[in-house]
Amino acid sequence: MKDRVTAAREIMHYENGEMKRRTDQMVTEYPLTVMLNGREFVTLVCTPDHVKELVIGFLASEGVIRFEKEIKRFTIDESLGFAYVDLTHPETLEQKDYTKRVIGSCCGKGRHFYFQQDVKTAKTAVSQIKISPEACLALMKEMQSGSGTFQETGGVHNAALCDTDQLLLMRTDIGRHNALDKLYGHCLLNGMSVRDKLIVFSGRISSEVLLKAAKIGVSIVISKSAPTELALQMAEELNITAIGFVRNGSFNVYTHPERVGI
Amino acid sequence: MKDRVTAAREIMHYENGEMKRRTDQMVTEYPLTVMLNGREFVTLVCTPDHVKELVIGFLASEGVIRFEKEIKRFTIDESLGFAYVDLTHPETLEQKDYTKRVIGSCCGKGRHFYFQQDVKTAKTAVSQIKISPEACLALMKEMQSGSGTFQETGGVHNAALCDTDQLLLMRTDIGRHNALDKLYGHCLLNGMSVRDKLIVFSGRISSEVLLKAAKIGVSIVISKSAPTELALQMAEELNITAIGFVRNGSFNVYTHPERVGI
Repeated sequence: MKDRVTAAREIMHYENGEMKRRTDQMVTEYPLTVMLNGREFVTLVCTPDHVKELVIGFLASEGVIRFEKEIKRFTIDESLGFAYVDLTHPETLEQKDYTKRVIGSCCGKGRHFYFQQDVKTAKTAVSQIKISPEACLALMKEMQSGSGTFQETGGVHNAALCDTDQLLLMRTDIGRHNALDKLYGHCLLNGMSVRDKLIVFSGRISSEVLLKAAKIGVSIVISKSAPTELALQMAEELNITAIGFVRNGSFNVYTHPERVGI
Repeated sequence: MKDRVTAAREIMHYENGEMKRRTDQMVTEYPLTVMLNGREFVTLVCTPDHVKELVIGFLASEGVIRFEKEIKRFTIDESLGFAYVDLTHPETLEQKDYTKRVIGSCCGKGRHFYFQQDVKTAKTAVSQIKISPEACLALMKEMQSGSGTFQETGGVHNAALCDTDQLLLMRTDIGRHNALDKLYGHCLLNGMSVRDKLIVFSGRISSEVLLKAAKIGVSIVISKSAPTELALQMAEELNITAIGFVRNGSFNVYTHPERVGI
């Protein structure tokens, strides 16, 4: 599907009082409907590459599967945008339940989770890795420079799985969560450990992004952008180091600064 | 709820080889669950201001209501984050159906819609208004300069309803769609006509943003950022003028340039 990630389009460009015709690259959006054990489960609007990783990562993130071996059959109809996933077991999750609100504070995992499914799948980080400020800045720079052809189209998110030395794997998507799900799916499909890994991300650290990182199982999230207050409350609870505004040689450490060694 | 839109937090700031403690403002996220006729309908993660506008705009955008008079009762439990909405009629929409995929191309409204509900609620623009390049640049500038206290926290989206002369109403939210729903809700709650109005938006024109604009009923969408190819296909079909990359005195017109008068 690589060739469908961007599309050329004739546009009108206004500058200095003149309107001129020119050709620009547009980023594509691809609606992908996941049929789970024969029933419609979700429609993800995504950048159409690494689609199997995306679906597997999404299902794991939502608690539907934990391992690749639970997938009995996986087929994709690219032209219609449908992924057919048959599990070795019935799904335990109704579609309507996976965004069911946590009511009250009886779940025992703190008061900051708002979806029931997240209470079950978000993991508390246990890794004691440390990262230097220099590595933090270098990893962000490496991710930014590697984003390639997407830079010109604007408006896509990059996410990279790294160790403290280097960028190991990068994924890009029009949807911020999709980029993270693609990383997660890759790890599951390839038996890649996330132990002592971290995530570098181009977008804001919202609560949903923080939860995705916790589900993948990393202990440090580094973002070019701002976090939200709710994401930071979750990061504190889940023992995750949240780092943001990595720009021009500086950054902020919001939670668990003990992992940043100076 | 105004005071809960941002929160102060002690953070560690790294710069020039030093880590220093300082206080920064974080933007908050507020999970708001909509109970519709006594049943859980959706959880919107939002910036907690103009919450009633948000809920009404969301319900209208999803096709659950068309007018304010269909709301029999509206109450909010701010501390738990629940909005209770009772309609004068049973809801006609099951929760699981409102993101149900359009299958095939039999809907008669073109092949670019992917959710059934959008086929019913997105309107084809009929307005013949024209905007000058100067007005286009001025409206974006006005919105940017008006975003106020949010600018420091980063990562929120602004949306403004305008006529071709001036900005009429601006809303801000952590969720790009929420900012648009707040505009829509305001129009419905205050009987404000969208005829010959346009939307200026800080975020990318994704298919979801374009559809929201079409549901509100405007004919021009002006964005600081990039559109996606799918959004532009929809804009062509729905007769909406999509303008993007409004920066440094220049911009791009992607669809229906006949509304931009030079």
